Amino acid sequence: MSALRNFKITLAYDGTNFFGWQAQPEKRTVQSVLEETLSTILGHFPNIIASGRTDTGVHALGQVINVCTESTIPCQGLLKGLNSILPDDVKAQSVEETSVNFHARYMAKSKIYAYAIYTTETPNPFLSRYSLHVPYGLDIPAMKEASKIILGEHDFASFMATGSSVKNTLRTIMESSFIEGRDKLYYVIEGSGFLRHMVRNIVGTLLLVGRGSLASNDMEKILDATDRTKAGPTAPANGLYLVGVRY
Amino acid sequence: MSALRNFKITLAYDGTNFFGWQAQPEKRTVQSVLEETLSTILGHFPNIIASGRTDTGVHALGQVINVCTESTIPCQGLLKGLNSILPDDVKAQSVEETSVNFHARYMAKSKIYAYAIYTTETPNPFLSRYSLHVPYGLDIPAMKEASKIILGEHDFASFMATGSSVKNTLRTIMESSFIEGRDKLYYVIEGSGFLRHMVRNIVGTLLLVGRGSLASNDMEKILDATDRTKAGPTAPANGLYLVGVRY
Repeated sequence: MSALRNFKITLAYDGTNFFGWQAQPEKRTVQSVLEETLSTILGHFPNIIASGRTDTGVHALGQVINVCTESTIPCQGLLKGLNSILPDDVKAQSVEETSVNFHARYMAKSKIYAYAIYTTETPNPFLSRYSLHVPYGLDIPAMKEASKIILGEHDFASFMATGSSVKNTLRTIMESSFIEGRDKLYYVIEGSGFLRHMVRNIVGTLLLVGRGSLASNDMEKILDATDRTKAGPTAPANGLYLVGVRY
Repeated sequence: MSALRNFKITLAYDGTNFFGWQAQPEKRTVQSVLEETLSTILGHFPNIIASGRTDTGVHALGQVINVCTESTIPCQGLLKGLNSILPDDVKAQSVEETSVNFHARYMAKSKIYAYAIYTTETPNPFLSRYSLHVPYGLDIPAMKEASKIILGEHDFASFMATGSSVKNTLRTIMESSFIEGRDKLYYVIEGSGFLRHMVRNIVGTLLLVGRGSLASNDMEKILDATDRTKAGPTAPANGLYLVGVRY
């Protein structure tokens, strides 16, 4: 009998044509596509553990998964095998062998997400698939100010999707900032964990600050309210990226 | 009766989900989508003249068309109207009113195409849709040298798609060069006109030079042969962009 091995695999995917991460009957999901590919390569159904789910349409630059196997395939062979079989919109970026105790979800210390916005007056077919088009002026200093209010540990119930059954809505945010490019704006957030739709609801609220519909310090009142109806709308999925996971 | 007006419209489109430019029954083409949209806005079927066709899967950053109408719509109204109706993968970038004598095809002095290649070892889902993945080393100095050989007026029959019925295969190339980026390579070509698949066949041949299967000066022999079988394969459509048209 071969020894048990544990592979840590980093994945990038264009979420546009996936019904999110999690396997569902009759739907094309990243997990199902990966299960099928790994079955072929490893010769057994793989129990894939991901750092977390991503919703329909959300992209990933660095989703991390782990999978245990007795296969003797080398890392490079697994990387090349995966990328020769996987479709164009999901590809492995790296494969490493790790301790059998490594668990991609439980051991995640933090996750980094980015939200991409572009601000040219006319819409651009090459940007719309991967970022939100905001053709009106944004008060970026106000958005920056508001973004800092969520730093640290807070109850994020106001930013959780309605219908979520999660009890503990406390989360810690280590990074929350904007990076400005020419006609582009990226919001970067790192947290100990995220509630359902939390990043998109934060972005939707920050955009209201950017438009002047909310003041920067309204962010504090919204947090305190722990009431979803006080925050802004959910920003579209196509601007959101799971950038990476820290362990 | 209103006066006849002529609009010059610059379009960008992601060619992935189009069967090329030209209207065809039962196929989604850029021309058909645009005809439908302009019919709604102008109130009559539009006779659209494009600078030229683009093939299935080829992208455009600056396709130019013109359309005559008696509509009194202002340019900004037409631009905003088009972009509010057009799907995400084709958008007008500018609209201007021009002389009624302007003809987007006949008056084109030259066209500029670019071909995008990326060279990271692992494939990237966000680049594969818009560029060719070349994971092996390329001899870029040799490719640059070969690219200069086609400058000027030449018979490009060796680079024309088999089955084309065009008689005059002389074309003038004013620009043929490579731009190197980090893990990226762009080939830019400007010419008086292009035969069917000409840019993609030139790129396919330059890639053989890059891999060392051909020497730089084989480019001259291939031109002289005026025989399609002497040149390299047709590079995939997804790396090709119609960048712009000069008048």
